[in-house]
Order: sequence, then C-alpha cells, then structure tokens
Amino acid sequence: MNFTLNVLGTASALPTTERYPSAQVLDVRGRLFMIDCGEGAQIALRMAKVSFLKIEHICLSHIHGDHIFGIFGLLSTMGMLGRSSRLDIYAPRPFAEVLDFFMQHFGDGIKFEINHVILEMSEPEIVYENRTVELLAFPLNHRVETFGFIIREKMPAFNVKKDAISRYGLSLAEIGTLKRGEDVVREDCVISHSDAAYLPYVPRSYAYCSDTAPFPELVDWIRGVSLLYHEATFPAEMAEMAEKTFHSTTLQAAQTAHDAGVGRLVVGHYSSRFPSVDFYLDELRSIFPATDLAHDGDTFHISLLQ
Amino acid sequence: MNFTLNVLGTASALPTTERYPSAQVLDVRGRLFMIDCGEGAQIALRMAKVSFLKIEHICLSHIHGDHIFGIFGLLSTMGMLGRSSRLDIYAPRPFAEVLDFFMQHFGDGIKFEINHVILEMSEPEIVYENRTVELLAFPLNHRVETFGFIIREKMPAFNVKKDAISRYGLSLAEIGTLKRGEDVVREDCVISHSDAAYLPYVPRSYAYCSDTAPFPELVDWIRGVSLLYHEATFPAEMAEMAEKTFHSTTLQAAQTAHDAGVGRLVVGHYSSRFPSVDFYLDELRSIFPATDLAHDGDTFHISLLQ
Repeated sequence: MNFTLNVLGTASALPTTERYPSAQVLDVRGRLFMIDCGEGAQIALRMAKVSFLKIEHICLSHIHGDHIFGIFGLLSTMGMLGRSSRLDIYAPRPFAEVLDFFMQHFGDGIKFEINHVILEMSEPEIVYENRTVELLAFPLNHRVETFGFIIREKMPAFNVKKDAISRYGLSLAEIGTLKRGEDVVREDCVISHSDAAYLPYVPRSYAYCSDTAPFPELVDWIRGVSLLYHEATFPAEMAEMAEKTFHSTTLQAAQTAHDAGVGRLVVGHYSSRFPSVDFYLDELRSIFPATDLAHDGDTFHISLLQ
Repeated sequence: MNFTLNVLGTASALPTTERYPSAQVLDVRGRLFMIDCGEGAQIALRMAKVSFLKIEHICLSHIHGDHIFGIFGLLSTMGMLGRSSRLDIYAPRPFAEVLDFFMQHFGDGIKFEINHVILEMSEPEIVYENRTVELLAFPLNHRVETFGFIIREKMPAFNVKKDAISRYGLSLAEIGTLKRGEDVVREDCVISHSDAAYLPYVPRSYAYCSDTAPFPELVDWIRGVSLLYHEATFPAEMAEMAEKTFHSTTLQAAQTAHDAGVGRLVVGHYSSRFPSVDFYLDELRSIFPATDLAHDGDTFHISLLQ
C-alpha cells in the first residue's frame, strides 16, 4: 500500500547539472499522480524507474517553463510507447493553448485522449476522486495563476471490534451504523463507535505548494497533511527577493508547515545561486524540525499507520 | 585554434538514462555553433561546461520533437542570464510557428533578438559566413523537411616562402598574387605559387547528417569533410525499418563516409531498442575503419594540420 513521493527535479527557473526543473510523481497504492513536468522529466522518470504508462494524472501548477517544458517530450514518448488510455491533465486555463500548439505540430503520434481539466477555483476543490483517493486543487500566490494540490486517501470504513459484536449482540444494521462511524442508539443505551469500532488505518495525505509566497488561507487548506512539499527557493536572508518574485524563504516554508501541523516537510525549488543548499536545513529545522531537503531522485515514503 | 565537436545527445526518438535526444555544439576557434536542441540540451550544455551566452548560431535540422524540444528551455535560460546579443536560428519554415508560440507564451524575459533564417534550399547554400568560417545548409531525405549542415573554415591566404622572396626578388604586387594562390607571370618566366607559397594550414570542415535515408547527391555535397557526423539509427539487419522511417543503418552511414572520402566518421542517433550499440562498430568499420561511436558527453577534436 504505497504512498511514496518520487522527486524528479528540485531546481527553480535555472536547472543545474545536479537539479532538473520541477517534476515529481506520487505513487498512491500503485496509482501514479505526476505533479509538474519540467524539462527532462521523461529522462528523470526513466532514472527513477517509473512506468510512463501508469501515469493517469498530471497536475500542472502553472504555465512557467520550468514547470511544463517537459510535457512535450513526455506526451510524445507516451504516444510512441503506444499509450491508449486517457490521460487527465489538471492545469490552469492557459494550458489549453499550449496543448493546442503541441497537438497541432507534434500530435500525429498521440492516439490517446488527453483531457484538460481547467483549474480556476478560489479555494480547495476536489477535481478527481475514486473509491480510495481524492485529488484537490487550490490557488497559490505567485506571479501568474498558480495552483497547489492535495492528494489524499479517503477516510476508510470503520472496522467493528469482534468482541463488541458478541458483547452487545450487534445486528447487521447496527454493524453498518458503526462502520459509518456513527453511534448505535438503542432504547436502553448508546453503543459508542469509539468503543465498538476502530479505523483500520489512518488516511495519508500529501500537499504540493510550489510556486508561492505565503498567504493567510494556506495554513487552513493544508492543515494536518502527512507530508507537505513546499518550495523554499530562497534562504532567510533573501526575504525581499522572495517577496518580489512571489516565492518563499526557508523560514516561511517552515512556518507554514508548523502552523498547519503537518506530519513532515520536504522542500525544494532551490535558487541556482546555491550549488549546495545544505545551509537551508538549519533555518528550516529551527522552526519545523521534521524537515528534509529534497534532492533529485529522492523518495519519501509515508507508512500506513494502523 | 579549436575545432571541437561536443556531442550532447545521441538518442533517437526515445531518450534513455544514458542518452539525451539530439544536440551538439561545434566550437570553431571559440565561436559556438549549436546543432539541434533536443530536450535537456541546456542541462547537457552545463555538464559539458559550454557557455550558453557564447552560442551565436543554432542550426535546427527539422521540426521533430527529439531535435527541438530543448529550445524552449534554452531560450528561456538565455533570457534569464541576461543575454543581449542576437541569436541566429537556422531552421525550416515551420519553426516560425514554434517560435511564435514560444514568444507569445514564454517570451517575456527575452530581451535579445532571435533571427529565424528560413531553410528551403534544394542544394548546399551558404547561410552564414564571417572572415574565417562559413555555414552551409542542404536538404536531407527524411519524413519531413530536413536539412544537414556543413561548418568549415575558409581557405586561408597562402604564405609566401621567405627564401622565394629573395631568390626571385618578388615585388609587393607579386607577393599579393602568390598570397591569392595565383602564379606570377613575368616576361621571361612563370613563378608557380606551388613552388613559392604554401597554405599555412589545411581548412577543417564538419558535416552533420541527421535524420536521413541515403540519397545519391549527399556524397558529393559532403565530399572530403574532415569530420562527418552521420546518423546510424539502426544496425545493418534493420535495413527495412530504416527505409520505412527514412533513417540510415550502420552500413549506409559508413558507405556514405567511404564514398565521400571524409577524414573521420562519428555516428549517433541510436535506436532505443539497444541499450548498448557497441555491436554497431564492427559493421561500421567493415566499410569505413576511421569510425567512432558517439556517446553523450564525448568530444571530438580536429587538429590543425600545417
């Protein structure tokens, strides 16, 4: 029951020999959600041994080159590999013109449906769900229209404790009530679901916030996620540059993680000024200790807690 | 006095973890000519420690993704690095729409002039020259309009041998005649320039032929170049596939090199079917021994022969 983030690229606008532009893949129980698709993403996918054809969803945060210039090569390659299943791309409205251009000039080999889901919400909205997982998008605060994403497991049905069934002589209808997380109300007593039932596992969740300056609503929108990826383009001392370019510093990313009470923070989208960003870590951990720096090729697993 | 080919990518349509798509840079005495610009070219340029801003010319053979999808990121990065000098891009007519798309959606940071030189010749034509170097383009034989390129040093002025000046009592006018490679004709004798003058060096030349099936005129057009890069997408046994896709096999590439009497052959643009193409080499060298396989990151130097 995977819940694993593959970080493919951690550069900001200018890639380096060590950092490809933004791209990542979240594997949720074998279903792959790609998030952003910077130049070279298809090569990084091969290096990470991720199957192109298993990618069902691509979430594009915004239409800046360092987040989307890999989409042309990736779509072309999917076509050459004989993909036939639909691909859903969640992206702001201007992506429609990018896709039109691609299909017009390079679309000959594309035999699969590409479905552009236009993002234009002003607060978190579910844009995809299946039985076990849901994908939400929400606005970020960048120079152009930009969206963050949450991918989370749905709340599972409660399991009813075996000894409670015999202890209370539970009927099938009463077991159904407990599975929905409700209490059983009888003539003479109440059987509390917290006493008779339990969650088989704690649903896991991932939030992606890049590119963005801090803004008040964000903390509520991502509250309590298991894993937060937040950009930390600049170190603390470059707060002015961060503000001017609508990016975040280390301290801002860590403060957001802290205020939102997330389980774990991973940062990336580093300024190319700094060949090593190891010095970011002290700044980050001074506010939110459960923080790691992402490097290209890193994976972050979230275990299923029972 | 460099004449050095930097091979940045040797993949054909599908890149692998070892091979980026087609891109290379020829350094002629410090002037950089980029040829093709597949996805990831800007990262490969960094790995090769080539200065982006020194690239004055980009030659794009044809408008297939594996030869041009790196141009978006490269132009964006040149813009962010503050380039101000003009960039000439030699490419077939449909590139105009690619460039328009790029400038419309991603051109905000481009403060330098991009000059698209449209290729539409039916035989070799000089498309750029300066005092010492010239760039020619010529048609290839692929599924879409495709062009090859020759970059060559111009014939230098002859040097007049010192002892000939005193032996024949040469006047300034006569020295000028010999420098132009002509014989001096006097009332009573002819002073042959082959006796009294010599070439200070042999001009070096490079030809790029990818993607193409063989065709009769090609041998004449690239005759005698010092270094030929020719695609060898397929091994000999896949001749049928090569014909169908308008590509070349090892034997065809080597035969062209042999018939054209080139100095040295380097091949690339390998099918992704073969993680190793070492077995191509025997096939190639059976016809043209002075052949090497290009790998990403390889450089090939052509020395100045005096």
